[in-house]
Amino acid sequence: MMKANAESGKRAGAQSAALITPAIILVYPQLGENIGFAARAMANFGLRDLRLVAPRDGWPNDKARAAAAVAEPVVEGAMVYDSVEAAIGDLNYVLATTARPREMVKRVLSPETAASVLQELAQAGARVGVMFGPERNGLDNDAIALADAILTAPVSPEFASLSLPQAVLLFSYEWLKSQKPEALGRVTTFDDPATEGLAGSEMRGATRAELFGLFEHLETELDRAGFLKPAEKRPSMVRSIRNMFHRMGATDQDVRTWRGIVSALTRGQRGQGDKVS
Amino acid sequence: MMKANAESGKRAGAQSAALITPAIILVYPQLGENIGFAARAMANFGLRDLRLVAPRDGWPNDKARAAAAVAEPVVEGAMVYDSVEAAIGDLNYVLATTARPREMVKRVLSPETAASVLQELAQAGARVGVMFGPERNGLDNDAIALADAILTAPVSPEFASLSLPQAVLLFSYEWLKSQKPEALGRVTTFDDPATEGLAGSEMRGATRAELFGLFEHLETELDRAGFLKPAEKRPSMVRSIRNMFHRMGATDQDVRTWRGIVSALTRGQRGQGDKVS
Repeated sequence: MMKANAESGKRAGAQSAALITPAIILVYPQLGENIGFAARAMANFGLRDLRLVAPRDGWPNDKARAAAAVAEPVVEGAMVYDSVEAAIGDLNYVLATTARPREMVKRVLSPETAASVLQELAQAGARVGVMFGPERNGLDNDAIALADAILTAPVSPEFASLSLPQAVLLFSYEWLKSQKPEALGRVTTFDDPATEGLAGSEMRGATRAELFGLFEHLETELDRAGFLKPAEKRPSMVRSIRNMFHRMGATDQDVRTWRGIVSALTRGQRGQGDKVS
Repeated sequence: MMKANAESGKRAGAQSAALITPAIILVYPQLGENIGFAARAMANFGLRDLRLVAPRDGWPNDKARAAAAVAEPVVEGAMVYDSVEAAIGDLNYVLATTARPREMVKRVLSPETAASVLQELAQAGARVGVMFGPERNGLDNDAIALADAILTAPVSPEFASLSLPQAVLLFSYEWLKSQKPEALGRVTTFDDPATEGLAGSEMRGATRAELFGLFEHLETELDRAGFLKPAEKRPSMVRSIRNMFHRMGATDQDVRTWRGIVSALTRGQRGQGDKVS
């Protein structure tokens, strides 16, 4: 593994991949829990560089550590600063998160656009970051003025207020998405990652021959049972039954299961028939 | 405002727009706080139809109400069911959220794809929903088997575990995004919504004539101060200074501010010069 550089290498839980990920800067955060939840959201999407400007309840903070859960290393590695200027001093490009427009001429980015802008800058070697304000009032105008652009999420106008960890989560999620990950979900010793598309691919799709075998089996039995009548309706009935199997994208195992079902049901029927006759 | 239909009209906090939004079904949720945070995430992105299957700590739940904050109406309007089957009985298309692939042949969708699939179905009149499992273990295989497809978010392999409210938030956010909202952030009596692009558009961009006036003023003063030397470097120095103003996308107010700055600085310099001479 490469260290990004000597400075970040000194930080516990620091970014150790070649690509420097965005710093998340919490400006005057109030509740320890929210710092912890924000750290957890960062870790969920591969971010590590947490910076705190004058956290209200001091630092370290046990509630932050508890709320972070498995993401405790991100909390442990957080750097604390006295001022916004100090916290972002080493960055080349900084966004300010705010829920409402300000009387300031600045580019406004959605989380999705922000992530792709920062991704491009980071890949060109820039150090980038996103500032989030205190829970009660958000970032003040002095902090916003220091940013290159504004980050604002689309929200319902009726309930527009995102919590601090929610806002961090949305950016972090979009950051991971901007890397176009193919894997979804958890990867463990036992589980491969999921990808979009059909899961369970170790089971192969049924061949058409297997399906035709099933159709013949089923339709023979349905004919025998007098189900596919009257005769003029038989073609459309057969078509719609066949279509159900095509629609389900049946696997070879599915076909075997259905042939078993048909056999089992008709065995019973014929057994009953035997009794009656 | 239109009622979506008579049934949903009876529900407090029910969907009142023409488009029926997805139901969020929390299956055996454990912590009241998480139900409340999930409700808040729903409300932030315009979802209202919250359904609970056998919540562990009973219902109603004060912690859920408190955690929901302004989204309390979503909690108040939640419907409670004994079984997953009962909770999704009226739905046409249901997703199951899970963090890891299962031994089941089912389509896997990212939150973004899931939102656009559900959006399309809802616009065609289908009732759709997304199931989320209990905090400890997630949805069991019996619940997953009842779903049309699986929803799995992209996450960092090292910290893959999303909390229940985080998972609800990501889907809800992608749902709102799938409606292609133009407005970002909060809308109040005083604040218009933000949109992507340059904020503060009541301030117009500077005209080229205003900029040229500033350039002339500034360059005259810089020539006077002997800054633009040697002469062979002057053209490239002038170009790079002018370029900075173009890059910042200066407004008319910016130009006035800079002309003030240049005047103020040169007044001081000449004043100083006067004293020295």
